[in-house]
Amino acid sequence: MNQSGKILLAHGGGGQLTNELISQVILPAIGGQDASSLEDAATIEIPDVGKIIFTTDSYTVEPIEFPGGDIGKLSVCGTINDLAVCGARPIVISLALVLEEGFEIGLLKRILTSAGKSSKKAGVSIVTGDTKVIERHGDTAGITVNTAGIGLPLRQARVGFDRNETGDAIIISGPIGQHGMAVMAQREGLKIDITGSLISDCAAIHNLTMKLIESFGAKVKWMRDPTRGGLSATLAELAAATGRSIEIRESEIPIDPTALAVAEMLGFDLLSVANEGKVVAVVSADVADEAVKLLRKDSLASKANVIGEIGKVDDFPLVELLTRSGGKRIIQMPYGQDLPRIC
Amino acid sequence: MNQSGKILLAHGGGGQLTNELISQVILPAIGGQDASSLEDAATIEIPDVGKIIFTTDSYTVEPIEFPGGDIGKLSVCGTINDLAVCGARPIVISLALVLEEGFEIGLLKRILTSAGKSSKKAGVSIVTGDTKVIERHGDTAGITVNTAGIGLPLRQARVGFDRNETGDAIIISGPIGQHGMAVMAQREGLKIDITGSLISDCAAIHNLTMKLIESFGAKVKWMRDPTRGGLSATLAELAAATGRSIEIRESEIPIDPTALAVAEMLGFDLLSVANEGKVVAVVSADVADEAVKLLRKDSLASKANVIGEIGKVDDFPLVELLTRSGGKRIIQMPYGQDLPRIC
Repeated sequence: MNQSGKILLAHGGGGQLTNELISQVILPAIGGQDASSLEDAATIEIPDVGKIIFTTDSYTVEPIEFPGGDIGKLSVCGTINDLAVCGARPIVISLALVLEEGFEIGLLKRILTSAGKSSKKAGVSIVTGDTKVIERHGDTAGITVNTAGIGLPLRQARVGFDRNETGDAIIISGPIGQHGMAVMAQREGLKIDITGSLISDCAAIHNLTMKLIESFGAKVKWMRDPTRGGLSATLAELAAATGRSIEIRESEIPIDPTALAVAEMLGFDLLSVANEGKVVAVVSADVADEAVKLLRKDSLASKANVIGEIGKVDDFPLVELLTRSGGKRIIQMPYGQDLPRIC
Repeated sequence: MNQSGKILLAHGGGGQLTNELISQVILPAIGGQDASSLEDAATIEIPDVGKIIFTTDSYTVEPIEFPGGDIGKLSVCGTINDLAVCGARPIVISLALVLEEGFEIGLLKRILTSAGKSSKKAGVSIVTGDTKVIERHGDTAGITVNTAGIGLPLRQARVGFDRNETGDAIIISGPIGQHGMAVMAQREGLKIDITGSLISDCAAIHNLTMKLIESFGAKVKWMRDPTRGGLSATLAELAAATGRSIEIRESEIPIDPTALAVAEMLGFDLLSVANEGKVVAVVSADVADEAVKLLRKDSLASKANVIGEIGKVDDFPLVELLTRSGGKRIIQMPYGQDLPRIC
C-alpha cells in the first residue's frame, strides 16, 4: 500500500486493505506482534491471576437504529461475540461514547436502554464507561461507541488457527448477510414489502460457542464471528492463516430468501455481507453432525449447517465454492468494502 | 437538565453538565449504578480469579499533536493513569482507532509510534486493537482513539471516597494546567517567546501512585488524576462525594509561570485547566511530609506539595481556596467546559 498516502473508507472495510493497514502501518508503528494470525481478542497471562481474554471494538453504524437493533445493542453483542469465539466466557464490558454536539438526547436514551437490555439478557455487565462530546461537522450529529470486554477462557477450550486439520468440518450457525442487508435496506430507504421480514441478526452468540466447547472440548478447533467482510473474509483469513485450502458448498449455506433478494436488488454478494449474530466453527469431522444438532436446539442457530471442510496444506491456499450449478468459484478476501460502515 | 434536548459540547467538559448527563441520562438508561461516587475505573471480582480493575477512555484532542505529546501518547498515558489512581498496577491496554477518510498515513504512523513508545516506557503492553474508518465531514480528517485498560489492585491499596477523614492532607504532584494550556496555546497559534517552554505534562503516573501505596499502604486514602475540569473538578467531586468541606491554599499550589501567563492571556482559570500527568492524593496527615518527600524524588513530581486538608462533614460541603492575598474563594465544579476537547 501507499504508506505516504491517505486513509480511504475502504481501509475500514474488513478486507485486504484493512489487513494491509494493520500489518504494514499500525503494528510496525506500535511495535506489536506479527499480524499474520491475529485473533479477535488477546489472551493475557497475568501472574498470580491466570489467563484472561481482552478485546475492543468501535462501532459507527449508519443508520444508528436499524431493523433488529441499533448501535447500542450492536456494540454490546459485538464485543461479547469477539470474546465468545475465542472460547471465553464473557465477564464484563466497558462502554465509551463519543457524541457529536446536537445529538438527540432521546435517541441517546434509546440506544443506551438497548445496550443495557442486551447486556442484561446476555448476563454480561457494563461496568465502566466514558463520555466525550466533539464538534459536529456534518448535517446530522453522529455517535461512535467503543466497547472493550474481558472474558475467561473456558477450561476445555483449545481454539486457534494452528488447530485446524485436513478433513475438519466447517459449520455456520445460520443464514448469512442479514445484518448487512437490513442496514443497507434501511439506508437505501427500501420500504417495499420484501424488506418487511428482513431484520439484522444482531445477537450475542456466547451461549452457542460455550455449549459447543462444553460439549466437544478440544474437538472445537477454531471459531469466528463473520462480521465485516462476511463469510468470505472469515474463510479467506482461515485459509491464509492455516495455509490450507478450503472447500465449501453453496447449496449447504443457509440463506434467508429476503436477504438474498435485497442483496441481488442492491448488487451485493451475500457471502461478503456482514453478520452480527453468527458463528463459523471448525470442528472435528466425527462430531460435526452432533455439533449441528446441538446448535439447532438454540433459536439463534436453528438453521445451523455444515458448509464445507478444511482441505490440504497448499502453497496457494484458496477458498473454493462449489456452486449450486456444479461449477467452482474462488472466494477471495474482499479488497476494500462492499458496505460502508455497517458495524 | 433538559432531557428531551440535544447534546452540547459542554456536556463533554468534565464538569457539572457531564455529571448530569451521566447521572440523569446514561446510567438510568443502561440500568447501571448510582453515579454519586463513580470512580475512574471499575473493580471487578471475578470468581476463581480475584479482583481486577477495568477502565476505558476515548480521546479526541485537537490539535492531534501538541507540545509534549499527541493523541497517541495521551491515550496510552490517560488510561494507565485511570488505573493507577485506583491503586492498581496497570497490566495491559487496548487501542481502538476511528479514522476519518483522508487521514494522513504519515501522521497515523507518528501517533502510533508515540503510543507504542509510551506503552513500552510505562511497561504496559498494547495487546489488542481495532480500526474503523468513517466518512469525513469537516475540512480536515480527524481521529478518535479509545483505550481500555486492565490493572491489578496492589495488595496494600485501600483507596476510596469513603476513606477520607477530617484532617487528611491533600497533595498534588506538581504544577497545574500545563496540558490544557499547551494545547490551547498551540490551537490559538501563540508563537511568542513565552510559550517556548510550555509543554503538556502528559505522562504515565503509575510509578508515583504505586510508590505511594507501597510506602504508605492504607494511609493513602484516595487518588485522582485531575484531567478534564482540572483541580477544581477533582476537589469539587471529592467534597461532594465525601460530604466534607475542603480547604486549600493558593500559595501552596505549584504553578508553572508560563502556564499561568498563557492562562491569563487567554482568560482561563488555571485551577480548572486539564492536567495529564499529575495525581491528587489524600493521605493521613502524619505521613504527608514523607509522602511529598518520596514524590519529589521522581522527576515527574519534583514540585509535589501539600495544598490543603479534608475538613469537617458539612451539610453543604464546599471547596474553599485561601487566596494569596488572604481572602477566600469558593471553588466550584466547572459548569460546562473551559476548554473544548483537550483530552
